[in-house]
Amino acid sequence: MIKVGVVGGTGYTGVELLRLLAGHPLVELSLITSRSELGKSVADIYPNLRNVVDLQFSLPDTEALAECDLVFFATPNAVAMKQVPELLEKGVRVIDLSADFRLHDAQEWAQWYGEQHACPELLEQAVYGLPEVNRATIKEANILANPGCYPTAVQLGFLPLLQNGLVSCDSLVADAKSGVSGAGRQASVGSLLCEASESLKAYAVPGHRHLPEIRQGLKQIVGAEVGLTFVPHLIPMIRGIHATLYAELNVEPEDLQSLYENCYADEPFVDVMPQGSHPETRSVRGSNHCRIAVHRPQQGNRVVVLSVIDNLVKGAAGQALQNMNIMFGFPEEMGIGAIALMP
Amino acid sequence: MIKVGVVGGTGYTGVELLRLLAGHPLVELSLITSRSELGKSVADIYPNLRNVVDLQFSLPDTEALAECDLVFFATPNAVAMKQVPELLEKGVRVIDLSADFRLHDAQEWAQWYGEQHACPELLEQAVYGLPEVNRATIKEANILANPGCYPTAVQLGFLPLLQNGLVSCDSLVADAKSGVSGAGRQASVGSLLCEASESLKAYAVPGHRHLPEIRQGLKQIVGAEVGLTFVPHLIPMIRGIHATLYAELNVEPEDLQSLYENCYADEPFVDVMPQGSHPETRSVRGSNHCRIAVHRPQQGNRVVVLSVIDNLVKGAAGQALQNMNIMFGFPEEMGIGAIALMP
Amino acid sequence: MIKVGVVGGTGYTGVELLRLLAGHPLVELSLITSRSELGKSVADIYPNLRNVVDLQFSLPDTEALAECDLVFFATPNAVAMKQVPELLEKGVRVIDLSADFRLHDAQEWAQWYGEQHACPELLEQAVYGLPEVNRATIKEANILANPGCYPTAVQLGFLPLLQNGLVSCDSLVADAKSGVSGAGRQASVGSLLCEASESLKAYAVPGHRHLPEIRQGLKQIVGAEVGLTFVPHLIPMIRGIHATLYAELNVEPEDLQSLYENCYADEPFVDVMPQGSHPETRSVRGSNHCRIAVHRPQQGNRVVVLSVIDNLVKGAAGQALQNMNIMFGFPEEMGIGAIALMP
Amino acid sequence: MIKVGVVGGTGYTGVELLRLLAGHPLVELSLITSRSELGKSVADIYPNLRNVVDLQFSLPDTEALAECDLVFFATPNAVAMKQVPELLEKGVRVIDLSADFRLHDAQEWAQWYGEQHACPELLEQAVYGLPEVNRATIKEANILANPGCYPTAVQLGFLPLLQNGLVSCDSLVADAKSGVSGAGRQASVGSLLCEASESLKAYAVPGHRHLPEIRQGLKQIVGAEVGLTFVPHLIPMIRGIHATLYAELNVEPEDLQSLYENCYADEPFVDVMPQGSHPETRSVRGSNHCRIAVHRPQQGNRVVVLSVIDNLVKGAAGQALQNMNIMFGFPEEMGIGAIALMP
Repeated sequence: MIKVGVVGGTGYTGVELLRLLAGHPLVELSLITSRSELGKSVADIYPNLRNVVDLQFSLPDTEALAECDLVFFATPNAVAMKQVPELLEKGVRVIDLSADFRLHDAQEWAQWYGEQHACPELLEQAVYGLPEVNRATIKEANILANPGCYPTAVQLGFLPLLQNGLVSCDSLVADAKSGVSGAGRQASVGSLLCEASESLKAYAVPGHRHLPEIRQGLKQIVGAEVGLTFVPHLIPMIRGIHATLYAELNVEPEDLQSLYENCYADEPFVDVMPQGSHPETRSVRGSNHCRIAVHRPQQGNRVVVLSVIDNLVKGAAGQALQNMNIMFGFPEEMGIGAIALMP
Repeated sequence: MIKVGVVGGTGYTGVELLRLLAGHPLVELSLITSRSELGKSVADIYPNLRNVVDLQFSLPDTEALAECDLVFFATPNAVAMKQVPELLEKGVRVIDLSADFRLHDAQEWAQWYGEQHACPELLEQAVYGLPEVNRATIKEANILANPGCYPTAVQLGFLPLLQNGLVSCDSLVADAKSGVSGAGRQASVGSLLCEASESLKAYAVPGHRHLPEIRQGLKQIVGAEVGLTFVPHLIPMIRGIHATLYAELNVEPEDLQSLYENCYADEPFVDVMPQGSHPETRSVRGSNHCRIAVHRPQQGNRVVVLSVIDNLVKGAAGQALQNMNIMFGFPEEMGIGAIALMP
Repeated sequence: MIKVGVVGGTGYTGVELLRLLAGHPLVELSLITSRSELGKSVADIYPNLRNVVDLQFSLPDTEALAECDLVFFATPNAVAMKQVPELLEKGVRVIDLSADFRLHDAQEWAQWYGEQHACPELLEQAVYGLPEVNRATIKEANILANPGCYPTAVQLGFLPLLQNGLVSCDSLVADAKSGVSGAGRQASVGSLLCEASESLKAYAVPGHRHLPEIRQGLKQIVGAEVGLTFVPHLIPMIRGIHATLYAELNVEPEDLQSLYENCYADEPFVDVMPQGSHPETRSVRGSNHCRIAVHRPQQGNRVVVLSVIDNLVKGAAGQALQNMNIMFGFPEEMGIGAIALMP
Repeated sequence: MIKVGVVGGTGYTGVELLRLLAGHPLVELSLITSRSELGKSVADIYPNLRNVVDLQFSLPDTEALAECDLVFFATPNAVAMKQVPELLEKGVRVIDLSADFRLHDAQEWAQWYGEQHACPELLEQAVYGLPEVNRATIKEANILANPGCYPTAVQLGFLPLLQNGLVSCDSLVADAKSGVSGAGRQASVGSLLCEASESLKAYAVPGHRHLPEIRQGLKQIVGAEVGLTFVPHLIPMIRGIHATLYAELNVEPEDLQSLYENCYADEPFVDVMPQGSHPETRSVRGSNHCRIAVHRPQQGNRVVVLSVIDNLVKGAAGQALQNMNIMFGFPEEMGIGAIALMP
């Protein structure tokens, strides 16, 4: 049993964390903070948590947080980095769901996030929490950077191709589609039902903040820089990410299906679908799974990979619990084994 | 541990049953039948059940079903009644999620369902599975009629008013709204996304099959016939029922809020919301709860009750498991304690 | 050809006005104002108007507006009333799509809108722009109060029953359902796609601002106070209102279907559907029609009326153009004859 | 004024044709056929056409059709080709909205559509109705093949790049997203609201029937075979296609924005958006426009083109009317100038 605190529990990532933590048998949820909702009961804002979580939102007080074994940050970018160093010093382990500790390079972080990083010295120490790649180091992490939603879907999709050196790494394409919950719970015109439903658009084509994160992850796999075009799209639905990945074969591969199945044979949360499949995002709604299919249309030299996750679960809160389980030696599937809600 | 079979596991009620049964610690799911999908793997049709349920659909063979302790029927109306008598004779207990055993009166059943009832002698014996009303008899039931979705939401909403004799029973109105999953997984033009989304309509205003079921239930509560106008509407969403109930006070009540809270104080799955609330259907998405609010606009003599459920859970599969738990002496919340998925 | 200005052209009512005015052959759209978008091109905010409306948003300057023959106010409540008196003095006619001039009683207005009315002396002079009731006076109006969306659907639905004295007027029920565009284009959490889609709720049950407007309108028809319970609901779709109306017959009526058909036989924008119909909101999407069906379930003494409109067209901008056409002697259907977009 | 018949008027393309034809000032709609709805009134199936189109569905009788100047086929594939030769002989001009006359090569047609073509000799004569490419020949066409929805969006997006020889033609990628109306009005499980909403999937990755059509069109532009990977996706909305196109520059281009603007400067229905734009599908909902934006992320050598249309308008019925206007010498925008419905 560990004592857990959540900083910034009012956004969609926050409420999903609360939902999952409330059902985890080895977690005592002891503290939830929110400046904006200070003093309110969690259940008032999230009626699904009525009679389940009976905490009130409190201030993110370092002393109080220091009594936890683990603190999750579900805050906007550039918040966690200001409080994490103090917590680490007090021996608290931290899982940050924001982008503060995802990039190793403080210069690159500053360029994409528009301000200087508050603790660049911690960037090296932070572990990038993609269990399928970094499970061993995650176990020892004190400060864990939970991956972004798009980066999770894209990296898991490309991984087997890149690890086996099958494709040209200078012309990868990731055409990604996300439900609107990826934009958070902020009141913004663009996320209104009347603006975002019954429509579809690409956004941030000139450059999205997840681009450097994905490039860094793929580089770690390949061992060299990769050329990637990444185009995210806003889809009229609540949850779900679908990454459609394109790569050019540069060697004639053996069976791609087996390659994928073998690569993920031992992974509890990556499901390689049968040959010819087209995974639907709803098949992972509310679940921590990533489902993947690999295609080679007309036996040409282009590979197309389809990779789906729930952006709030495997793309955020669920993966955070998976990392927590690894860090604290709990069974990896504990508390995140729910079956997707379908229909 | 009980052995459980499901007859007709391919509709939305069926897959929801499978999802819930797969997570119930005292259930061994041993048999799933479907004539239309015979021989196919469950996971091929419902990818959310991959690596969770590895059964194939088989024929609804009475011998095989007779080895179960409990058989659920998630079949279209007028199917269960043809096989249930045989199963009962063999000592199998049955929970029927269709309408075959909901009405006590075989004449009325024939009138609304367009054919003679196949085993009218069982209608008296069948227990109507609304735990908040019939918990004691449910415990002993051999053949249990699981309530319809609308009837669940409407009866739970009216119950405290009627039990306490506060309102006129001859002019009740139930204006009910349902997501499209209530129409099932049949390929019909009216349930296509392009027909049912971005639109709204009433249907079956001249008479819906849930009307006699609701009237029978309310009559049991009141002890007399009730006059009810019931108008269902099709709403552009997947899950959820919202019943808006109107009744005329015929005595000056004490505090309606306390009345409702007291009535349901011991009920694990009925949540009376704080005064002034407007429950959202999403607050019960994927959960077995019914959330209720009671209003008295401008302190007039009209009471307005708002009652929401997930039509596939408390309105179908979840309530079926609740009844199973009661019938077999399991903890009533076992396997159906999931928190609603929000957003 | 008349010169027209629009004050507050950035909300949903505003853009719908612009779309319709741009297609009206006798309108010269000469001025669009918005404080918040000052100087921006209309087409930048509403790309559907690219190459159609090439105005920029300007300040709501009275001098400039005074050069118009007609000014529409599509502003939030309590804005128009501050500028209208001056415009009237300068001989400009005004159609106000906000609520400022809908109630005759300044006391009641103050009570529901939370501030004193700025020009109570104009409330008597203002004409309530429901053409099916007030066509003759609309023709002469200088200040026209365009009806609310709910009030339009509810009044048109009840009208034939009330005009003919068929129902008890002290226990009317209007259960109304609206798409989210009714909440406007303000950035608010409750209107986010992730909050409002895949869910449904009632709101403002204790009292909605359209209640006094509807009561006033029904009172005008009946010639006496009416008792009305009005419950609005938020539906997960963009456009459309569906009013489900309940009334008790107090005399045995002749044929209700004929009654409705005769009542609206000469109305270009009210369509009484064939007996037994259930109108869908999408059948009026983008059109100025109100479609109505009347039912008497099981030949009891309750009448159920189903009334649908597009809240942004017949419930706002389209009705405003209909009123403009009447006021300026144009053919009543001019510029608002578009067929609903289906699917 | 021309007399027009529509064969197969009950699908989504059919009703959209009827909606547009009903508003065209030089068209007399004289005949609508449907075997499945024979004898029913059009308005019974499509209430938006009540009091606008008062025809009944009749049989597709050649004699009756021969009295028209123009016949539209909005039939499933492999129907039109059986009746068109006879109509042509009788001097009727034909616009086919199905795929029967889109491919020049009868062998290729047979391979993708699974049967022999019924009149291969007409394939050469048929004109491919993409006005932006073939306007001159369209004018003289007797049998016009109206382009598919995906092919329209993809070809218009790639056209300026290919015409100017700027990109490598052997590795084009078209990642396309379509609303569900593209799947038609057939009752199929996959198009149910409960299957297709709140989810997203790719489909037909191994090969979609629009692939050879697109390849043929691009080949005509380039003058050589092109290598194209085409992946369509099903999006939870009714209308709209978004094509995201990827190409590798093989020369350093001058200004791409100007290139696109110049290419389409005289086109009434192609709108090149300002630099940096991300067109939304809703900006063309119900309109005949294609809106395009061109990007060069991080000034690399990959070009990304975003191209949106309404699949039922510019992708089907609207383009068919545009072709009709060209064929009969009417103003090209007549009857298809409606502004997109937003929101």
